[in-house]
Order: sequence, then C-alpha cells, then structure tokens
Amino acid sequence: MTTTGKQLFTTLEADGTLTVAIEDVTFPDPVGNQVLVKMEAAPINPSDLAILTGAADLDNAEYSPGKFVAKMPEPFNTGSKARHGMKLPAGNEGAGTVVAAGDSDMAKALVGQRVACVPGNAYSQYCLADAAMCLPLGDHSAKDGASAFVNPMTALGFAENAKMDKQDAILHTVGASNLGQMLTRICKEDGLGLVNIVRKDSQAELLKNLGSTHVVNSSDDNFMAQLVSAIDDTEAFYGFDPISGGNLVDTVFKAMEQVAVSKMTEYSRYGSNQKKQMFIYGRLDLGQTVLSPSYGFGWVLSGWLLTPFLQQAGMETVGRMRQRVLNNLTTTFASHYKTSVSLEEMLTKEAVTDYRLMKTGEKYLVEPWK
Amino acid sequence: MTTTGKQLFTTLEADGTLTVAIEDVTFPDPVGNQVLVKMEAAPINPSDLAILTGAADLDNAEYSPGKFVAKMPEPFNTGSKARHGMKLPAGNEGAGTVVAAGDSDMAKALVGQRVACVPGNAYSQYCLADAAMCLPLGDHSAKDGASAFVNPMTALGFAENAKMDKQDAILHTVGASNLGQMLTRICKEDGLGLVNIVRKDSQAELLKNLGSTHVVNSSDDNFMAQLVSAIDDTEAFYGFDPISGGNLVDTVFKAMEQVAVSKMTEYSRYGSNQKKQMFIYGRLDLGQTVLSPSYGFGWVLSGWLLTPFLQQAGMETVGRMRQRVLNNLTTTFASHYKTSVSLEEMLTKEAVTDYRLMKTGEKYLVEPWK
Repeated sequence: MTTTGKQLFTTLEADGTLTVAIEDVTFPDPVGNQVLVKMEAAPINPSDLAILTGAADLDNAEYSPGKFVAKMPEPFNTGSKARHGMKLPAGNEGAGTVVAAGDSDMAKALVGQRVACVPGNAYSQYCLADAAMCLPLGDHSAKDGASAFVNPMTALGFAENAKMDKQDAILHTVGASNLGQMLTRICKEDGLGLVNIVRKDSQAELLKNLGSTHVVNSSDDNFMAQLVSAIDDTEAFYGFDPISGGNLVDTVFKAMEQVAVSKMTEYSRYGSNQKKQMFIYGRLDLGQTVLSPSYGFGWVLSGWLLTPFLQQAGMETVGRMRQRVLNNLTTTFASHYKTSVSLEEMLTKEAVTDYRLMKTGEKYLVEPWK
Repeated sequence: MTTTGKQLFTTLEADGTLTVAIEDVTFPDPVGNQVLVKMEAAPINPSDLAILTGAADLDNAEYSPGKFVAKMPEPFNTGSKARHGMKLPAGNEGAGTVVAAGDSDMAKALVGQRVACVPGNAYSQYCLADAAMCLPLGDHSAKDGASAFVNPMTALGFAENAKMDKQDAILHTVGASNLGQMLTRICKEDGLGLVNIVRKDSQAELLKNLGSTHVVNSSDDNFMAQLVSAIDDTEAFYGFDPISGGNLVDTVFKAMEQVAVSKMTEYSRYGSNQKKQMFIYGRLDLGQTVLSPSYGFGWVLSGWLLTPFLQQAGMETVGRMRQRVLNNLTTTFASHYKTSVSLEEMLTKEAVTDYRLMKTGEKYLVEPWK
C-alpha cells in the first residue's frame, strides 16, 4: 500500500530565511505499535507557533499558494541555530481516523476508529502515531477531539503537580486563555483555590461566569493590591505562566512575598521563609524574563513542559488524566475555535498574521482535507 | 550580675536615612540553654552588608566617631520597607569566650571555653548565643574561629546539596572568593567536579595552585568557549551564584544548554531535556537578574540560604558538617583577612567604603575590644 498526501514543513536557513510550505509526501506503512491516521482536524497552539512562525517578520514575507518565505530577525535567528537547515514537520496534535495499523494488537484494535493523537506532524493529511498515545474518541467529532491532548493534559497537569507538591491553590497568569478556562473548571471541580490574572474586564467577566472567585485585572490601577489580596485569600504561592518575557512573574513573586511578610512576627533581612514557586510553560513574549532582588531567597522559578511532567507522573496518573479528559471532552475540556482553515489557507498572509497574535479566544483549526 | 558593653545598631528610616552607630547597652543574664559570650572577633561577610550598608550612598554620608548617617537611594529604600524604623543589631557570626551560662548542662559546660557562635549581633562586646549552635574552638584563636560558620557551612552545604541531588559536579560563579577557595578544597577532597568562574588571571592562578582543574576567566574573549568546554568535561549542570544581578546566570544556562544540545541526536523546539539548575545565594549585584528564552524549559533557578538548607538536611548531617569544619579549621576552612578594625574604626569612611566593595581576598575582621 502506498499512501501519499500533503504535509506542511518549516525550514529555517542559517541566513534567517524561514520557508513554510506544503509538499506532497509518501507515508510509510505503520509497523509494530504504529497506526496510520487520516487527519481530519488539528489546532494551532502557541507551542506550534514556535517553529511555524517564531519571531519571523510576517508582514514583509512573500506569500504564494501553499507557501510563505519570511525573514527571522536577530537575536532569534541565532537563537534557533540548532534547527538551521533542518526541514521540520509541525503540528503537535490532532484527530482523525485510523486507516492502517502495525502488527501489535493495540494498534490493530484502533483500525476504523476516530482517535486523538500527538504525532508532531499533525498539519498533514496522514500521520503515523503511537497507538499507546492515541485516545479513541467514540462518537465525538474530529473537531471536538482535535485539542484533546495539549491543553487538557497541561491544565490537568498543573492541578496534578500542585497536589503532588501539597498545594491547595494555584495562580495562573493568563486566566482567560483556552487553557485557563479549563484550569478554572478543573480547580472548581477539585476544590483547588485559583487566582486568575487577566488583562481585560471582558475576560474577568468570562471567568466569573465560569465560577472563578479570584480574578485580578492587570490593567487596573490597583492591580498589585488586587493580586496581594487574592493571594492572601487563597494562599496561592504556586503559579504557572506562559508569557515568560517581561516582569509579570517578578510582580507575582513580589505580591506573594508581600503577603508572606505581612504574616511575619520578626523582620528578616533575607525575606520570608514562605516558598514561592512559579513555572514558565510558554514563550508568548520572547523578551527577557526579569527578576528583581526584592523577595528574599525563598523562591523557585523553573521551566515546565508537559512531556517531562507526564514521564515523572507515571503511567497510572497519565491514564487517569486521559480518561478524565475523554469523559469530559465537550464540557470541562471543550476547546473553541475562531475559524477553520485548509493547509493552503493556513499559509496565507491573512491567516498567518492573525493566528500568530495568539489572541484569547481566537484559536485556529486546520482541516487538512478541506 | 550586670553586663554592659558596646554594640552596633543599624536603623533605616522611612525617608531613607540610614544610621549605623555604636551604643552602650546592658546585656541580660543568659537563661536556659543560652550562654553569654565575650566577643573577641567577628568577620564582615557580604551577608552582613545587606543591613549594615545595603546600597546606601556612603561617599556622601556624614561620619562622626562611632557613627555614620547615609542616604538609601531608590528603589532600595522602598524595597527595604519591612525594616523601616527598626533598630537592628548586625553581625551574623563571631568567636569569643563564654563568661556566663543559663541553667542547662550544655550551656554550663561551655563556661570558660572559646567558642564560635552565630548570635546575629556579633558586632558587640557581648552576645547571647544558643549553646546548641556554639562550636567549642579548643586551642584555636578567636581570629581562626571567627568565620567558622557562614562560609564553611555554606561551602560544605553546596557539596552536601549536590550529593543529595545526585550531582557529580558543581559550578561556582565566584571561584576565587573566600568561600570559593573553601569549595575548591572541599570538592577536591570529596572527588566532586568543579567549574570555577573568575574575573582575573591572578584569581585563576590562585585556584590552579589550590588544585582546581577547571577555571574559566569571564574577562577572556573566549569565555563562552572556555565555559562550554569546562561544563562538557565535568558535566556540571548544577551551580551556585552569589552575584544575582546581571546576566551571568543566563550565560551559564546558555553554556549548559549548548553542551546538552551538542549531545542530542534529534532537534527539539523545546530545547534539551538536560536539567540545568542554578542557585542564587547572595546579592553582590543588586541589579535585576535577566533570563533569556534560549535554553528551553529544562532549567530551575532558585534562591539558596544556609539556614533553610540546614533545617532540611537534618541534625545528623549538620553535626557531621560542624565536626568537619572544626577538624579542618586552619586548612580546608581557613579564612584570611585584609585587616582588623575596632567597632569605632569599622564605621569610619575609610573602612566602610573599602569593605562594602567586597573585593576578593579583602575581608575585614572586627575586634570589639580593640
């Protein structure tokens, strides 16, 4: 059997030329525990944009059918040295129907079923995926299942990680994001406190309608006072941030320390002993992360990625998380899309310059057979 | 019994006026497990300077016998809000002779002995100290024992922490410091790899004479290449930094990632999975710590303080560490001083503006009875 179809590739040359283009490719037959999935839908997540567009100058790119060529500015081009000259597939996750399988029983049992999968080349008409990572979707549509992995497992991962670390509350710096809305529902279901930071009144409204009790607006003049009060109420000294660049993490640490110091009975030149922990799980802002020397030494800042977390959490926890996602796919873990595009449409100037903004509530869905 | 003597106090007012002055005080009798120590010598460590001078404008301060009054600039004055109006003692550690004790057997057994102690008000003619924290110095001089706690236990703490975290090597950003020299000797004794960063050829020479095998000079044009090579050799993905402000930690993370990426067989947009960990244990530079988005998500940065580490390490480990310090006080853990000053002399313009520079190899010793 020879399977051919269209697939997206992204290539960054050493001189900073970024080429993203659709090509016709031949897909190898699945072997062992692999399945071949005819892809029906794949979301464009912020984590996909890292190699799809990065910081490229998309306003002055050359666009032609099924292709764009853009320049990657410095320091981002040099920072991407490790991928120079490589032709990379893109698209972490998606959903489709299994059309062929390798020899394993697990793989064969999936033939004919619609599954969510994490192939790493989801912007493609076909993908090879690991049967062990496929989530059978039952009667759910491909659109409902396309985002069943990255955002749901990440949001659940935050809650699981917090519980492992004996925390009763979480802080999230982008409360109104798709992931933030999921996290709001998860925390409510699990009785975890949650401080949601948003940038607009409309986002605050949205989260309050979801039952969020502590929403603070970073655009308000009294943001710091709101933040301190919400941390004091919830004892959220443990938070997640996908922005990275700028000083929001610094501001959060300052607010946490202000709460901790207000409860100290004695002054310490070293600040409070209250452990303050923040995780950076994305790069929505590619600028530098700035930390000021104003919250002592009782703080931890680290990167956070889903795959290492799942490896650390173990099979049993991951199985339980996946089942919970499947059981609540159109409620707790529902994703919403602004629009859907074909592979060719996703490379037009109109589309690229829109989805790379990563605006809240404006996620794109790619339908490779559209 | 009424004991009176001179003691140093530091007070920062809300308007930014910093007053550091010697006062006559009456010391209460020791009770329970306390001992009264007639202090003979106390070092001025960087950690003492935080409340002794901070970022105060010492060039334009008013100096009078036993006193100086300086202005604390912004943002440091506001950053020190928690101590506004408080009159604080200073001096973490020192050595002296026990002249009185509380009721406990442990305390009474120390009477007449010379001890190292950590009273928090060591810039004083007398101190009350906890007998459990006193280290009997035997025949050692007060000068030899004055710095028996902070630097030795911190350097040993780095090695202990590295072993707890299953590390075979450590990176230290101020290799030639008093503490760095101790760490060099400790790592050699314990078979731990060590990457020492220095700023001058003379410092590199000093460390090589101590047997350090991986010394890199940040003033050299090829610093980054030296650093990458040393990390590659030692696999030191775990380091300690007391500078904090600026981009040295960022540079170290970049070098660690460069080594890790060079060993990867496949490109990952998320960077390497190699865990890269740095601890900030001081504030020699009060500027902002800057992190760039160029080493993926497999990194951890946190504050590190001795006291919480010792609490976490437990009594047995701490006992073993103290014994090791005592056994090697004038060899592995030897401290050297540029000069010694009386309480009054330490508040002169000449002294204050010199020791606040915290130059390598120019530590001051205070002798309260001089």
